[in-house]
Amino acid sequence: MNGLLTLENVSTKKIQEIIDLAIAFKNGKKKSFPNVKMANLFFENSTRTLYSFHMAMLNLGITPIDFNTDCSSVKKGETLYDTCKTFECLGVDGLVIRHGDDKYYNQLENIGVPIFNGGDGKINHPSQTLLDLMSIYENFGKFQGLKICLMGDIKHSRVAHGNAEVMKRLGMEVFICCPPDFADDTAKSISIDTALETCDIINLLRVQFERHEHHETMNASSFHKDFGMTTERVAKMKDNAIIMHPAPVNRGIEIADDVVECEKSRILTQMTNGVFTRMAIITMVLEGNL
Amino acid sequence: MNGLLTLENVSTKKIQEIIDLAIAFKNGKKKSFPNVKMANLFFENSTRTLYSFHMAMLNLGITPIDFNTDCSSVKKGETLYDTCKTFECLGVDGLVIRHGDDKYYNQLENIGVPIFNGGDGKINHPSQTLLDLMSIYENFGKFQGLKICLMGDIKHSRVAHGNAEVMKRLGMEVFICCPPDFADDTAKSISIDTALETCDIINLLRVQFERHEHHETMNASSFHKDFGMTTERVAKMKDNAIIMHPAPVNRGIEIADDVVECEKSRILTQMTNGVFTRMAIITMVLEGNL
Amino acid sequence: MNGLLTLENVSTKKIQEIIDLAIAFKNGKKKSFPNVKMANLFFENSTRTLYSFHMAMLNLGITPIDFNTDCSSVKKGETLYDTCKTFECLGVDGLVIRHGDDKYYNQLENIGVPIFNGGDGKINHPSQTLLDLMSIYENFGKFQGLKICLMGDIKHSRVAHGNAEVMKRLGMEVFICCPPDFADDTAKSISIDTALETCDIINLLRVQFERHEHHETMNASSFHKDFGMTTERVAKMKDNAIIMHPAPVNRGIEIADDVVECEKSRILTQMTNGVFTRMAIITMVLEGNL
Repeated sequence: MNGLLTLENVSTKKIQEIIDLAIAFKNGKKKSFPNVKMANLFFENSTRTLYSFHMAMLNLGITPIDFNTDCSSVKKGETLYDTCKTFECLGVDGLVIRHGDDKYYNQLENIGVPIFNGGDGKINHPSQTLLDLMSIYENFGKFQGLKICLMGDIKHSRVAHGNAEVMKRLGMEVFICCPPDFADDTAKSISIDTALETCDIINLLRVQFERHEHHETMNASSFHKDFGMTTERVAKMKDNAIIMHPAPVNRGIEIADDVVECEKSRILTQMTNGVFTRMAIITMVLEGNL
Repeated sequence: MNGLLTLENVSTKKIQEIIDLAIAFKNGKKKSFPNVKMANLFFENSTRTLYSFHMAMLNLGITPIDFNTDCSSVKKGETLYDTCKTFECLGVDGLVIRHGDDKYYNQLENIGVPIFNGGDGKINHPSQTLLDLMSIYENFGKFQGLKICLMGDIKHSRVAHGNAEVMKRLGMEVFICCPPDFADDTAKSISIDTALETCDIINLLRVQFERHEHHETMNASSFHKDFGMTTERVAKMKDNAIIMHPAPVNRGIEIADDVVECEKSRILTQMTNGVFTRMAIITMVLEGNL
Repeated sequence: MNGLLTLENVSTKKIQEIIDLAIAFKNGKKKSFPNVKMANLFFENSTRTLYSFHMAMLNLGITPIDFNTDCSSVKKGETLYDTCKTFECLGVDGLVIRHGDDKYYNQLENIGVPIFNGGDGKINHPSQTLLDLMSIYENFGKFQGLKICLMGDIKHSRVAHGNAEVMKRLGMEVFICCPPDFADDTAKSISIDTALETCDIINLLRVQFERHEHHETMNASSFHKDFGMTTERVAKMKDNAIIMHPAPVNRGIEIADDVVECEKSRILTQMTNGVFTRMAIITMVLEGNL
């Protein structure tokens, strides 16, 4: 299958190429794919990923088609495969898909156009991982030896799972820091004080209430007290350390209001970089380099 | 009224012209209508028809505007006429409308821009009929003398009702095959074995659960057993016979999984042809030839 | 803050400039802003305002991006500020916002792109006010001395509140006419007969059922009897007087069916003028003149 479904099989060399191209786009490089049309098929809510892909397409001269799931034949029981096949038959040149099923793309082997994974269940979110990497590389100029701590709702986060695997391959040291309920075996767990004092990057994660099971009750204010990024905690971070978050943020839960746009925060930069990263991904796939 | 509302008053000569133009588009013919804007007003769910019209517009250099009914003044009780008049006043050059009311367009006589019927209640779906005809003509090179059987949920199907009338005028022999509950007087009823052994085209129809009345309970597995198109039944069809379906398909009900993309199936071709058919319809209306 | 949030601080000289530019656009003036992208963020239902801004953008060569609130991170609890900041970071050049909160824009002081208010709570709807003024000026060639009566659901109407303030500044005499439940201190109350016999403009307002509190029960037929614009009442109006309504209309409540498109009605003209007004607003903001 063509496209970008997961980073598992993408080499670190190729990842560096994508980041370099994204940075080139940020610095003004232009590319144009006239007469190309791509559809955004989002079966889960999204603001950043959907409109970031949309903007990336516009910047590349590609016509985006936003599929409105709620008013579609999905409501008549149409399968994901049949919806995708329809868009292929209609003549679109690529599909960006977000879907709640883990590795939904395994159903889509017979789709003949590139698929760009905009997030699957709790497993992959490759364009988010790449924009995170671009933001790290832009800041530090390297990956090797950097210490990152993924903090918060690890268990329900496709960002955490996707990022950890690739970051380790790139020579980064990955840790997690969270309440026991949110932990899994993604990486070694450390205390929040150790994280603040030793890590170059604190990668906050959104508490994903909508993915919690019934028994997973969470007390927002005690979470904020124990794991929320506050001005006091920012002050304990290393001088050149940065804060990241894939957003949307839960203000007052994993992050305090006044930290969102503080000097150490790269949260807004990540959104901006997301457009350039997606331009790079689309370009490399359409040109057969990914 | 300008546009394409029903095929009832469209001559067979004109129908052939549309098909010929659609085939020309499929073979690479180009047309461009710069500065033309058209709105898609869909009051019922749709994937194929909506995005097929959308793609047809893009291919013709027309700017599509997809109206989101759910977030509109329709929710404040605005009438269909007032919504359409609004788009006319805003300066759009044409409206594609799907609506649940039979012949909704009778309310729209004072609308001053062309209206393209994307399906009304259980009566008409002219662009679907035309793409079906294009797919038949592309396959057989003629209509005269071909035998077609409409199979399945005839009663709730605007495709069945629209297709039968025109196909008879084009010299085709039309039959129906379905459980007694789904029958009406569209055409002569035949047994499934007769259909398979004698017809050139088996035109499956979607079981339209969402249009069934309360008392019309249907047992999906007994329907599949009695009327579903299975590999065994495909094997009984004539050598050059084909299978059509307007889609979305109910896999395992009117059609088995492995029949959807079998050699005799033209289901994917129909979707592709839909774009070219709609390009032809729009072109002929905008140029005053329809 | 850049953009157009309210007309309170916009001088009557500037208002006249906007109207003059809108009329120039109606007379064929062209402007083009290539590579500009603007997002429509509507948190309340809309047909006219949303698609009118959409058309205005298209007419100016601007790429509109329609945000679908229902499928966005707003559903995950994202704040209005964070949604707007996201679009700024993604690179859009302006935001059109409709939101149910009065003066929602006070939360958006740190947004770095122009904001165009598409309606806030019950307070402002500046582009509607301006298109109303354009329609009046187009008809009478002046404002000074014109008598206007705002008729109907004054209390829940941002159109009434926004229009009255500006019209007084422009030298118009403003009156209201409504049942006691719908009255407020917007302007002096007059009887319907006085309104019909003395006013140059009857500005009907939609009965906004969706904004009524629980206790505000309204009897539609008695409202129509007492305050509805009927053919009989139209006959009592002055020769050159006109009827306006921001629409959507409630046919049979504040206006009778056959009055909507009668000779004195400017309701359709208002919709058409809305596109040109919004083209003027966008142009003046993007060129730094507003």
